[in-house]
Order: sequence, then structure tokens, then C-alpha cells
Amino acid sequence: MSPFGPLSAVASHPIHLPTALSTDRLDRYWATSGPLRYWYGTALVTDPILAALQTFADQHNIIPTFLSLFGDNRLNTTENRAASHIWFRNNNRRNEWFPQVAEFCAQIHQSQAYDTVIQIGIGGSELGPRAAYHAIKRWAIKNGQVHMKAKFIANLDSDDARLIVSKVDLRRTLIIVVSKSGGTLETTENLTLVSDLAIEQGIDPAQFRKQLIVVTTQGSKLDLSDQFGHSFYLDEGIGGRFSVTSAVGALVLGLCFGAEPVSAFLDGACDIDALSQDPNILNNIPLLSALLGVWDRTILGFPTRAVIPYCEGLRFLPAHLQQLECESCGKQVTSEGLPIDYSTSPMVFGHTGTQAQHSFFQNLHQGTDTIPVEFVGVLRGQLDDTVQPDLVASWVGQISALALGRHHDDSRKHCPGNRPSTLIILETLTPHSLGSLVAYYENRTIFQGLLWGINPFDQEGVELGKLLYQQVRAGESGFPADLFSRIIG
Amino acid sequence: MSPFGPLSAVASHPIHLPTALSTDRLDRYWATSGPLRYWYGTALVTDPILAALQTFADQHNIIPTFLSLFGDNRLNTTENRAASHIWFRNNNRRNEWFPQVAEFCAQIHQSQAYDTVIQIGIGGSELGPRAAYHAIKRWAIKNGQVHMKAKFIANLDSDDARLIVSKVDLRRTLIIVVSKSGGTLETTENLTLVSDLAIEQGIDPAQFRKQLIVVTTQGSKLDLSDQFGHSFYLDEGIGGRFSVTSAVGALVLGLCFGAEPVSAFLDGACDIDALSQDPNILNNIPLLSALLGVWDRTILGFPTRAVIPYCEGLRFLPAHLQQLECESCGKQVTSEGLPIDYSTSPMVFGHTGTQAQHSFFQNLHQGTDTIPVEFVGVLRGQLDDTVQPDLVASWVGQISALALGRHHDDSRKHCPGNRPSTLIILETLTPHSLGSLVAYYENRTIFQGLLWGINPFDQEGVELGKLLYQQVRAGESGFPADLFSRIIG
Repeated sequence: MSPFGPLSAVASHPIHLPTALSTDRLDRYWATSGPLRYWYGTALVTDPILAALQTFADQHNIIPTFLSLFGDNRLNTTENRAASHIWFRNNNRRNEWFPQVAEFCAQIHQSQAYDTVIQIGIGGSELGPRAAYHAIKRWAIKNGQVHMKAKFIANLDSDDARLIVSKVDLRRTLIIVVSKSGGTLETTENLTLVSDLAIEQGIDPAQFRKQLIVVTTQGSKLDLSDQFGHSFYLDEGIGGRFSVTSAVGALVLGLCFGAEPVSAFLDGACDIDALSQDPNILNNIPLLSALLGVWDRTILGFPTRAVIPYCEGLRFLPAHLQQLECESCGKQVTSEGLPIDYSTSPMVFGHTGTQAQHSFFQNLHQGTDTIPVEFVGVLRGQLDDTVQPDLVASWVGQISALALGRHHDDSRKHCPGNRPSTLIILETLTPHSLGSLVAYYENRTIFQGLLWGINPFDQEGVELGKLLYQQVRAGESGFPADLFSRIIG
Repeated sequence: MSPFGPLSAVASHPIHLPTALSTDRLDRYWATSGPLRYWYGTALVTDPILAALQTFADQHNIIPTFLSLFGDNRLNTTENRAASHIWFRNNNRRNEWFPQVAEFCAQIHQSQAYDTVIQIGIGGSELGPRAAYHAIKRWAIKNGQVHMKAKFIANLDSDDARLIVSKVDLRRTLIIVVSKSGGTLETTENLTLVSDLAIEQGIDPAQFRKQLIVVTTQGSKLDLSDQFGHSFYLDEGIGGRFSVTSAVGALVLGLCFGAEPVSAFLDGACDIDALSQDPNILNNIPLLSALLGVWDRTILGFPTRAVIPYCEGLRFLPAHLQQLECESCGKQVTSEGLPIDYSTSPMVFGHTGTQAQHSFFQNLHQGTDTIPVEFVGVLRGQLDDTVQPDLVASWVGQISALALGRHHDDSRKHCPGNRPSTLIILETLTPHSLGSLVAYYENRTIFQGLLWGINPFDQEGVELGKLLYQQVRAGESGFPADLFSRIIG
């Protein structure tokens, strides 16, 4: 029997939002965790369904398992190692690495030798740090805390690195090279390319080497102190998509904005880590949100999930969440390797509002699939820190339109309604509240993985593509090489 | 009976890619249209299925309907007007508007008074032009054809405009304001904000007015010649998401790169318009691709579709396609308003490769849903215009991994394979080939709308959200206002 049988049973009493929306739901379907407020009155759940979700979470030992993330553990069963990103950002272990980052940033700022930092990395070494950098940038401008600007190079397409390098003064640029294994093709190729371009510009190679900083694991292929001016390490149990609160994110953010905002960012994450320990799902936003996600995906069968931040500073958040959620939970066997007969990760996508309203929202309102939406609303701007009522009214209007729909005699203008959404509200977007928002999505993702019985910390599906790439480049025979030769000619 | 009955019949003979991939498919499953090459050997089709798709297209009068787009028509039945973007970019009508754009750009370049252009617009007024701007930028740098740089302001969140304005010298900046109706909230608000910021900087309002250019329809709320230094018009039959080859895209591109590359961009689109008239689906890439999309979505039931350009210059293409495809085909009634019982637009999403490989590709390889992928491969770089074999091998590796899968004794490393993809190849990304690529996606989208029997030119689903926004702002009673007051307090 599917572990989701008990949940499927309560699904036989569905809710119809256009008739069910009430003052009661407006008053009661709220939860608060730190700087985050969560409203789920337009989720397709009722009190009995919430009670069943609580029972389901209790029966699957979700909180005890989550608690093991605060110390040594073997939750990444596939690779037989710990998932350690939470452990290393909380206070007992943060002291082992963050002071060095803070001190290095202070030295660089004091030297006034650099105005730019380029981070070379891909996947979690790019997406999380890039999202956080843009989310803090306007706050830092407003508060006079911009020390350096950051650029990111990720793509194997050399057009990425070449344009970025052409825009900066390499003599005044630090290069952070981020690769956990030290063997990431894109990152080593881009390091070589940027170094070649520096030499072309007449920069002395020995001097340029001092500008190179590596963030990797101890003993990796890039743990070569003679080739870098400085080395920072992360624990091997910190997965790329969970690494923004390690040196992978903290170093570039600290160089740009100073160590203090980065401390606040980490504290914001730790606040949510603490609040995520509450077994009562109505007090634990990440767990409640994870359960609603499982409800939408596995019980109601919705194949996708949109995340729409109504905040220009969060422009790069959806791309980060796409990796975080899809790479963690896009699995089809349990953590023990047993086949499963239910749906796991939806395809997550998103774009900032209000832009998304003028783009794919047509498909949300009148398409043939139901696409649950998570709205992320920020009440105050960063550069102009007053409340933006027009912006708030925009997402309120969209939540309402999706839920209520509209009868129209012209069927082409008819909107069916009953389309679910959830809402995360931040009063302001600061380093602290950003840390909370990031940890909310991380912990929500881990909870979903545990609820689905899968290992959210491995990513075995991406290995085969790398292997076949190598076969092509080695000139081996078979379909990949044949296709390659048809294309390259 | 569903119109798709005859197609469902051939679906009872499915293909299994790991066993079916053959030299025959490598040799024959190619099509060429202008600068585009298309390989569909890893689509889930066979010769009999292709024959059925040909019959289906023939029976639904797809080509005769498409041909009407080259002249006056009433294809946008909901709004009882023409769909005219193809008509106006082809030669007979291009002469009515493009020479003015070209002349204006030449005058501006000659004056040397400006180094930046800011385009204020949202939806199609932002996404298509932004995608095209970034796709041409590196080509123009390489070819010494950069006259001005462009920035785009779209969001109602004032943090968007404020950051952009802080980065430019407003005295040397032209502002293009794009709104077809002239009443788009975001655009009029951002125009006001930017004008206020100019006054704050001490710029004379009368002088600043001369720097404002409007692109709108004749007689719209923004057709106010005394408030703008210059006005350009587009036909009311040109929908926002199809407007990048009108003045909406041509003006900003012409100011940045000169009129000649824009001519080439339009010519590239017209080449595909001509080739899209071929009734033989094996010679008509947009039609074939549309049919394969309908096959994946409506017959095989796949709810999403990924587009992955392996080219840094195409970074903003997926966001444009998300609007183009989802706003055009996210409908649940026919163009006559009759209910339909089959699936229309999938949820389209994407990101550049190789970044996407290190992000959500896990979900493509081992997730519980099949997610068809369109790979867009560009053989040569723009800044370094040599062939990039590592990059080509990367997408060949991914296509192979999705199709072939891999048996592994550890089920956590097992990849099921048989996951479909298609491939568009460009030798180089130039203004001309970009125009062809854009028109390929436009015509593909129109074909899909016609195949589904829907009107791909309206977007009635987005109106309700605007209406409820207005109710909130007007303080009217009801659920939206109640939710708003719970949030704003």
C-alpha cells in the first residue's frame, strides 16, 4: 500500500475555494516563523486535511530526523556521509570557519586594492550566491555598505567569461574559484580562460595568482595552495545547493558587503533552523509548506509549482529554488533504493512579479492544468523603504483571481477559479530576512524529501550525462559519438 | 469525439528510444529551414506517427490559415481584429515604419548626445526586446557595432527603476516608453518615477521630455505628442508577445546596434515566415515542431516542456518563450468558445546550458515525470567565433543520457531513459539567425494554437487579476480587499 493512503482518504472531501473562502480562513490560516509570515487560506486544504497532514508527519518521524542535521549524521545514505550545512552554520561550528572569512574580508577592504570580485562556479556555487548577492545589493546601497561589486562566471560557453572580463579591471579584481570536488569541468576551464585573458592583458602571472582564491574541500583536486593566494574550505557534507550559508556564499557576500551583513544572513537562517524543530505543523512554516507541497503534488497530482517573488531584489531566487527543489527531490527510488509508485518533485519554475503577470500567468488562470503558486510578497522596497501598496495589491489581486475565478457568459473570458496558492510575506528584505527565506526553502525541501522517503542530498541522475560527455570527447564509439560527428561534421 | 482520436490510435505503437536509436534515425530525422537545423531522432515518434501527424495537419487546414497572416485577417476572433505582426515585418508593409526607425537611429548616432537607452515596458514590451538585445550584444561587440547600451525597466516594484537610473547618466539617456494600450500600470508608473528622478537630478523637464520616446498604437492613452520627443506606432493587430520584430524591438535594437543588424534580424524572421508555408511537415520545422509538441502534450500527456539554449547570448530567450507559448496557448476553450477536453499549452520553462545541467537536470534524468527538452545548440561562440566542441559534447551527452538511460545495479544510480528531446542547431548566433530562431518559435506557437483549435492571439485570462487589483485599490469590499487589509494592517 502506498504510504500516502491515509492522505488520499481525506482527499475525497475536496474544498472549492470560490465558495469556501471565509473570514475564518482569513483569520486563522496564518503561521509565523521569525520574520516570515505564511498565509495558506487559498491552499486546497481544510482543518481535517491539516489534521491528517499532522498525523502523517508524526508517523514518519520527520522532526527527529531533521534534528539529526544539527550534528554529525549519515543522512546522505547514497554517498554514506553527513548532510552538514545546518550544523556548520549554527554557532558551535560556525566559529571554525566564519572568523577567517570575516578577517580576510576586512584585510581586503583595508587594502583598498580591489573593487570587484568574480566568482567562478556553477550549480550551487553560482545560483545561491548570485541570488543572495542581488537580494542584498540594494539594501547595501541604501545603507552605504557596498565595498566591492560581484560578477559570476558559470557557463562552459566562453562567451560568458569573455564578456564579464571585458567589463572589469582585472588588476583590481579578486577571483573566487568554487568547486567542491575541484574537478568541475566548467570551473576549471573558466579559471584557465580567465588566467589566459589576464596574461593577454599583461598582468604578471605571479601577481595574478595572488588574486586567485579557492573555495573547495580539503584534499580536492583544487586544494593546491601554491596556485592560489588564499584557500577556504567547506565540509564535504555541504551539498552545492545547500552551500550559500557556507564559505561558498559567505566569502563573496562578505567581500561585497562586509562580514556583518553576512553574520545577519547566517543568523536569519539559524532562526528558521530553530523554528523548524517544532513538531506542531501549524507553528512550523517549512514543515507545513512541505506538507502542502506533497498534498498538491502527490495527492492532487499537480505536476508543476511556480514561485513568484514580488520584489526586484529576488529576481534570481527562482533559479536557485529550481536547483534546490528539483535536484533534491527529483528522485524515483527511496533512500534505501526501493521503487516508489507516487510522484516526487514537481517541476519548479518562477519569475519576479509583476513581470510574470504580463507573461505566463495566462496559463495559470485559464490553462488546462492547475499550477499551484507560491507568492513571495515584500511589503517595503529596499531603495525606497516605504510600503508599496500598489505592489501588494497586485499579488493580492492575483491570489484572488486564481482562487475565485469568474463566471463570464463569453466562455473565452471565463476563469474557472479554485486554483491554489500560498503566500510568504516579509516586511522588508534585509540580510537577516533573506537568510530566513533561504533557510525556509532549504528546510522545506529537506522535509519534502523525508516525507517522500527519498534522499534529498544526492544527485546521481546527473552523472550519466557527464560520463557520455567524456565518451564523446574521448572519441569512443556509440550513439553519442555518432550524433556528435553528424553535428560537428 | 476528440479531434485527436486519429492520433491516439497510432500512439498504441510506442517507441522505446534505448532500443530504437539507429543510424537510420541519425541520418534521416533531420530538417533544415534557413539557418536552422532540426534533429528529432530522440522525439518519441516513428515514420507511421509522422505520417499521421501530416494527415492531421492537412485535415485541419493549418497552412491555409497560416497564409492569411501575410495579409489582413480576423484571426484574433475574441477581439475581432487581425494578427498582423507577420504582415508588418514582411517587405510590403515593413516600408511603412522601418525607414522612420532607421532614420531616427541614424540621427541619434550622428548627434553623439546619448550613450544609453532605457526601455520602459513590461510583458512583450520587455521580454522579447531584452532577449534579442542580449543575443546580439556580443556579436555587436565583436563586430564593432555598439552605439549605445540598453537597460530595461519593467517591475511595478520601484526598486527596479531606482537601481537602473542610479547606474546611468540620465542626461545622456534616451527613454523608450512602450505600451500598446498606453494604459499599462507598470509602464505609466515607471515613466512618472523616472521623470521624477530626472527632476531630482536637476534636469530641466522640457529638455527631459525631448529624451522621451513613445512606442504605442495610434490614438492610445500615451499617444500624446506634446509629452514625448518622438512617437512611433505599431499596428493594433501586433500582440505584445509577437512585437519584437515591430518598433517595440526594432527601435531599441537599432539605437544600440544600428539599423543594418535590425534589417538582418527582420530578414531572418521573414525567411522562416516563407519556409513556414510548406505543407510538407518534414520540410517545415516550425510546423513539425508544433506537431511534436502537440504529440508530447496532448497524446502522451507530458505537462511541461523545457527549452535549454547552450549559448550564453540566449540567456533571456527562455523567459521570452515562456510568455510566447504559455500566453498564446494556455487556453481551455476553442477560438469559437467551445469547451475542450484535451490538454493545451504545457508549462514552458528553461535556463541556459551548461548551467541547467548543474541545476534542475536531476529532475529530468530521474524525476517521476517525463519532461521533454528542446536543446538549442550554437556551434560557434560570438566573442570567440570558433567552434566550441566541449560545449557541443555537453548537449550531445545530455540528449544521449536522457534517451538511452543506464541500467545500474544500485537503483539510486539507475536512469530509466526513453526521455524525449529535440534539437535546434545554429552555426552562429547573428542578428539574422536570431531573427530566424525567434520566428521559428513564433510560428511554432501559432501552429500549435491552430492545431489545438484555440485563439493564440488573445489573453483574456489576465484581465481578472487587473480588475481585482483595481477593486483593492478602490477600497471596494470583498475577499481581495479583506486579504489586503489583513496584510497591510
